[in-house]
Amino acid sequence: MTGSKRKVEVCFTPALYPDFRNDDAIVVIVDILRATSAVITAFMNGVKRIIPVATLEEARDYKNKGYLVAAERDGIVRDFADFGNSPYNFRHEIIEGKDIVYSTTNGTHCIMMAQHSYRVLIGGYLNLDALADFVIQEDRDLIILCAGWKNKFNIEDSLFAGALSESVLQHEHHTTICDSVYASIDLWNLARNDMMTYIEKAAQRHRLKKNNLDDVIGYCHTLNMTRIIPALKENYLTLLDNL
Amino acid sequence: MTGSKRKVEVCFTPALYPDFRNDDAIVVIVDILRATSAVITAFMNGVKRIIPVATLEEARDYKNKGYLVAAERDGIVRDFADFGNSPYNFRHEIIEGKDIVYSTTNGTHCIMMAQHSYRVLIGGYLNLDALADFVIQEDRDLIILCAGWKNKFNIEDSLFAGALSESVLQHEHHTTICDSVYASIDLWNLARNDMMTYIEKAAQRHRLKKNNLDDVIGYCHTLNMTRIIPALKENYLTLLDNL
Repeated sequence: MTGSKRKVEVCFTPALYPDFRNDDAIVVIVDILRATSAVITAFMNGVKRIIPVATLEEARDYKNKGYLVAAERDGIVRDFADFGNSPYNFRHEIIEGKDIVYSTTNGTHCIMMAQHSYRVLIGGYLNLDALADFVIQEDRDLIILCAGWKNKFNIEDSLFAGALSESVLQHEHHTTICDSVYASIDLWNLARNDMMTYIEKAAQRHRLKKNNLDDVIGYCHTLNMTRIIPALKENYLTLLDNL
Repeated sequence: MTGSKRKVEVCFTPALYPDFRNDDAIVVIVDILRATSAVITAFMNGVKRIIPVATLEEARDYKNKGYLVAAERDGIVRDFADFGNSPYNFRHEIIEGKDIVYSTTNGTHCIMMAQHSYRVLIGGYLNLDALADFVIQEDRDLIILCAGWKNKFNIEDSLFAGALSESVLQHEHHTTICDSVYASIDLWNLARNDMMTYIEKAAQRHRLKKNNLDDVIGYCHTLNMTRIIPALKENYLTLLDNL
């Protein structure tokens, strides 16, 4: 009955991704607090390309070549870098028309894992509806890959996975048999009417607070500020429209 | 503030367990549909020991030596075995005082992974309160290890993880900073008042139905039929009281 429909799946952490891999799928990478929210913001503010790198050493090499570099580990900006992970760092007057090299705890790893897919997109609440519309229009399987935290499940990415899944599944060409999708949708519906209260449960919310980095939480949970979708092209991120 | 408290954590699938390993913890293995529900039932019905084995070859070798053998893959009983995974198989008149060799899709793997822990216990709704009481009494960290399905998250094990977490966290000596615990508790509270309706979402529920194996679903979700807790001793399962 559902054989000809497109599948929606949620992968709660990159550690589980090998069992989800599907090269025909659109993979949406999610790291709400804060990497993917920051990447979307950078493109909203006119960045030309973002080059994700896996190691701090690579990031430092790019810095030495004159690139703007965003690099953090566990929420802390590295001393050689221009930016960390805060969306507020990526201001129009600094980044417009430039290339940025980006190394984060989880996000880069996820992008690399999914690079063989039909499309690798960068997702967040900021571009939620644009993502759903694109997936429906392309009529493709969807895997929502949550960056999580050190290979573990996290709440903030899973809630977003619920929001995006629910939106795509409203379309008759998509279906799911993935328990993670159902759980995510239920959690999203518990949280959606008072996200800031719900997100108090999230460990990452408290890690950010401890480091005085929690000023961005409301912003990162703002719906549909943009139609922009960053996408992987070869080894860098650009606007989906440029693919 | 919570430094001296005992931690509660939920590991949604064995693939994530390496990041949870804590040899001082009590690990409760959960495979509600149906392996751990069946093991608890076997001990309720007087089995002496259950020897978990990883491969079908080992199970077959034991069969050739005269043991009773439970062995299934993907819900289907293997032709050389005496039982599959249904709790209804483990009847008093067949198993009382006997040893059973048990190889299942997920359960055995989980037991082996956790064998270095302070205690490895077999959990299900059938012995929920007994488990919570033991964890509280021992004043130990708790890891609830969900067997999941082929390394993926599943709904039925996660709901149980929420039930057990919530119960243990009511005790002042336990705390959590694990997002999986909060998510599990919220899902459990969505489901608990009408479990049979909620479990319709679970893929395993439909896999069992397809194979006419879903007669046990209500039974496996019955609360507190017993105070018995199966526990790992060396390389076999016995009653916790025998340790």
